[in-house]
Amino acid sequence: MRWEQTIAAIEPLDQAAMATARELQGRLTKPAGSLGQLEELAVQLAGLARRCPPPVPARPAVAIFAGDHGVHAQGVTPWPQEVTAQMVANFLAGGAVVNAFARQIGADVIVVDVGVATPLDAPAPQPAELGRETGSTSLWSRRVRSGTDDLSQSPAMSRAEAVAAIEAGIDVAARLVADGYDCLITGDMGIANTTPAAALVAAFTGAEPAAVTGRGTGIDDATLARKTAVVATALDRHRPDPADPVGVLAAVGGLEHAALAGFILGGAAARVPVIIDGLIADSAALAAAALAPDVVGALVAGHRSAEPGATVALNHLGLSPLVDLGLRLGEGTGALLAVPVVCGAVRVLHEVATFDSAGVAEKGTAAP
Amino acid sequence: MRWEQTIAAIEPLDQAAMATARELQGRLTKPAGSLGQLEELAVQLAGLARRCPPPVPARPAVAIFAGDHGVHAQGVTPWPQEVTAQMVANFLAGGAVVNAFARQIGADVIVVDVGVATPLDAPAPQPAELGRETGSTSLWSRRVRSGTDDLSQSPAMSRAEAVAAIEAGIDVAARLVADGYDCLITGDMGIANTTPAAALVAAFTGAEPAAVTGRGTGIDDATLARKTAVVATALDRHRPDPADPVGVLAAVGGLEHAALAGFILGGAAARVPVIIDGLIADSAALAAAALAPDVVGALVAGHRSAEPGATVALNHLGLSPLVDLGLRLGEGTGALLAVPVVCGAVRVLHEVATFDSAGVAEKGTAAP
Repeated sequence: MRWEQTIAAIEPLDQAAMATARELQGRLTKPAGSLGQLEELAVQLAGLARRCPPPVPARPAVAIFAGDHGVHAQGVTPWPQEVTAQMVANFLAGGAVVNAFARQIGADVIVVDVGVATPLDAPAPQPAELGRETGSTSLWSRRVRSGTDDLSQSPAMSRAEAVAAIEAGIDVAARLVADGYDCLITGDMGIANTTPAAALVAAFTGAEPAAVTGRGTGIDDATLARKTAVVATALDRHRPDPADPVGVLAAVGGLEHAALAGFILGGAAARVPVIIDGLIADSAALAAAALAPDVVGALVAGHRSAEPGATVALNHLGLSPLVDLGLRLGEGTGALLAVPVVCGAVRVLHEVATFDSAGVAEKGTAAP
Repeated sequence: MRWEQTIAAIEPLDQAAMATARELQGRLTKPAGSLGQLEELAVQLAGLARRCPPPVPARPAVAIFAGDHGVHAQGVTPWPQEVTAQMVANFLAGGAVVNAFARQIGADVIVVDVGVATPLDAPAPQPAELGRETGSTSLWSRRVRSGTDDLSQSPAMSRAEAVAAIEAGIDVAARLVADGYDCLITGDMGIANTTPAAALVAAFTGAEPAAVTGRGTGIDDATLARKTAVVATALDRHRPDPADPVGVLAAVGGLEHAALAGFILGGAAARVPVIIDGLIADSAALAAAALAPDVVGALVAGHRSAEPGATVALNHLGLSPLVDLGLRLGEGTGALLAVPVVCGAVRVLHEVATFDSAGVAEKGTAAP
């Protein structure tokens, strides 16, 4: 679908369904407000589904968008660029952490190549003992180009390429929803991709490069200084305008970042919850929200990455993460951990008895 | 089992299994340390199981210990005491939040009456559409006495009764482990039970009553002031000695608190992980740890309750909670949310490929 049509299809949360959900929360057999953040989450998902109770997510899929980055040449990470393709092979073989976490919750794994620079080997067969348990792992090719250009030297990609990546993400979301998936989870793979993510967060929030650039996979002080300088150089060179989100993505983004922005837009247009993972997804969500502010109603912040830019982005989006355990792996791992929490929050609206129906007395007035 | 025998059976974590787990974490296809808190959690459970990888919890059970409290007469809560029995009926009918969360993860629910003051009605049949999905809900009677005495006026119970409640909890844990449950989750129900919990936290940590007394189900300022004064009065009256944990439980505890301390001891003795819920379980864990310091190795802090005493207790125990979403419901709800996270952490050690086996390059040196 053309990206402008997708954006036009994104509407606000349904206030009537949310009011019904809030009223129901107050009648369930629990003290008012005692489920904390989960209560408003269930209300949000009622507004997204336009009904109360909203459906309990039953068929989650994590889409791992993979791409490479010209800025790798600036020495922003100690990992060889080939690791992007090697990890794609690992995902397809079921051997990465994202696969283990997906199996834990019964999610299917879709790897989307939007621009891996190294040729991908034929996927290794998934070990039978793992494949048996749940879900498929598959590779979808939506290649826009073979990695980006070095954003510290030139735009990472053209506007047309950024749009193509956004539309690839929209297409993946639409196809997954058409296939019956009812909960979309963002994943990413791309050696050096925290550098464009930091630049995107700075561009969309106005934060300083030093406040949003982190250690990624665990870089040393010298590499962090270099990475921060690269982000600053890119912002100085391109002066990305947050009022032109496609331009920002083209100048300082990455292929998987643009595709994730599209994936988020596609999920929101279909009114399916999108559980976002760490820094890469958070930076993509900033782009998506700049294109269509109502997209935020479809977003659930799966976790708070240890990367500083993640917190800056979540605060800008007004999202509170569900899991906060110091993860900084990406792949979709943090978001997958949050899925049972989301399901639990929604189940409450379906399954918990009311004070009336259960014959439980409501609170009166405490008196000594 | 006699409680002294259980305590004698609790041993430290196995350092060799933990070292093996740490070494394995370093070879898996992920940046070192990128799973944050989950890495050390998996190492802990290897130490508990005395092998690496430790088993992935497959059969969880939540035991909800229910009791009533003489201190209810002091007006520390606006909820009628009868709600304890009414909520027990709700648990048995499958209609409470704990039931919804238990179904979400496939956990069985065992309600243990250690001293509910109101006669329990015959349980209502569980709706067929809920019972079908997973797990049983059952009521075990381990009544020690019908509620406690008012701890602001006299000891809550005798030492013999505290020991009987501890041994009831030990017995429940042992029976569940014998029945094949491999992950024990603490739950509680007892109107007014945050008052003895606050007193226990103050007694074991030395914190001031005002620092550990919270709003429980959501009390107003006047009730909070009264509740805090009640905790202070109880501590002044009994001067509980943390070196005598049974004496502390008898003086200012509750039946479910003592039983939970026993449940934790029983799980630790069986080397089964015990996922603790909120303030009530945290206060019981302080008692268990005072009896047997190595018990902490079996504990996983499921969540951080919004009650201030919960954080004081967790800090004293050196535990970092997995979920932190402002819940203050009890029942075991916060701990149940953490179970998939625990399973995910352990799965990593079973299922994730090593750099060698997956043909993924390890990081080198970043160079511009």
